[in-house]
Amino acid sequence: MKNFRGIVFDLYGTLYNVQSVAGICDQAYPGKGAAMAQLWRQKQLEYTWLRSLMERYVNFETVTDDALRFTCAALELPLEEDMARVLADQYLRLEPHPDTTDALHRLKDAGIPLAIISNGSHKSIAHVVNHSGMGWAFDELISAEDVQVFKPHPKMYELAERRMGHAREHILYVSANGWDASAASLAGYPVCWINRNLGPFDVLGATPMVATEDLGAMADWVLE
Amino acid sequence: MKNFRGIVFDLYGTLYNVQSVAGICDQAYPGKGAAMAQLWRQKQLEYTWLRSLMERYVNFETVTDDALRFTCAALELPLEEDMARVLADQYLRLEPHPDTTDALHRLKDAGIPLAIISNGSHKSIAHVVNHSGMGWAFDELISAEDVQVFKPHPKMYELAERRMGHAREHILYVSANGWDASAASLAGYPVCWINRNLGPFDVLGATPMVATEDLGAMADWVLE
Repeated sequence: MKNFRGIVFDLYGTLYNVQSVAGICDQAYPGKGAAMAQLWRQKQLEYTWLRSLMERYVNFETVTDDALRFTCAALELPLEEDMARVLADQYLRLEPHPDTTDALHRLKDAGIPLAIISNGSHKSIAHVVNHSGMGWAFDELISAEDVQVFKPHPKMYELAERRMGHAREHILYVSANGWDASAASLAGYPVCWINRNLGPFDVLGATPMVATEDLGAMADWVLE
Repeated sequence: MKNFRGIVFDLYGTLYNVQSVAGICDQAYPGKGAAMAQLWRQKQLEYTWLRSLMERYVNFETVTDDALRFTCAALELPLEEDMARVLADQYLRLEPHPDTTDALHRLKDAGIPLAIISNGSHKSIAHVVNHSGMGWAFDELISAEDVQVFKPHPKMYELAERRMGHAREHILYVSANGWDASAASLAGYPVCWINRNLGPFDVLGATPMVATEDLGAMADWVLE
């Protein structure tokens, strides 16, 4: 077994499937669900980066709501307030990826402290975790709210170390987002990049320690 | 005529057409040019934001090259070094938008100092401007190189004011990039957003002073 003192996981896209909002989008706008979920996620990410760079932090729910409004306007879909609420709330009910639960069980059983580090607010993170019945898994839920800036700002990677109570070189950082995996690597963490789509790694001057196709293979690697 | 002491223009996408690299991309990879140019630009932008947030600045040519490598890998297109050079150099030979030259002539004739403020390096900006024969237009060419961080970091908007020698409220900021127009507005500039595609404005907590469909209509508004 690898000698990590803890494992921190990214939430959106890594443990939980951001494309799981496509279903309700498709109910609201038949035939548009997949395109809408994709643009919504793209703009959500962009707005976290832009807000952070502009030094104009707002919480993740606000960014998600703003990204939804842009997405509907860009796709020329009418968006009433009630519908905006229903759709945005879906981000509080994301489904875990199929490989998430079993991998976390195995790592937890091995006695490794597990945590989430996310751009989500405390409320969002807690809601997503509790809604999916995964509260048992995590020792720490770490939110961008505490530093008022989103990943990949260095403050987020400092926060993980502080909250885990161990030097970063002893904490495995797990993310399916190439840019997040890059930033964590550059910040000094050993990193496992979850490459579910078998795509290329972002070209940002970093290489992950290891890349696996899913969380199951990541757990295998940690436990072997 | 509006009483601006100067006008600063964004370069990529505002004065010059970033889609003008699609032609050479299509020669290199027939049928793939448009998709490639689009993803390349998207990743180029993302990498400027991510590099800035990670506090890992590299110059714009490096970001452009990195984004090209990711794009070809993602689209499963082989990329040899010679081809990478040819394609990346195309970003030094961008075509002005059809409405650029006439609008700049009219504003210049009215005696208004004109400038470019760009994420490009000094070398990139000078090359693009000279290659298109537009050197006559600009009093200042302002580069992110001088602050070692890209837009929309506040340092870029401070730099424009400093280089123009006037308080920002007297300088018109012109950009076709909604996120750049947003950041300039939030930073305190009067902003004209060039909305060539008649799309929605980014939802980042700002509104431009005015939006026009092209640079000609912008010049009309300034000169009226």
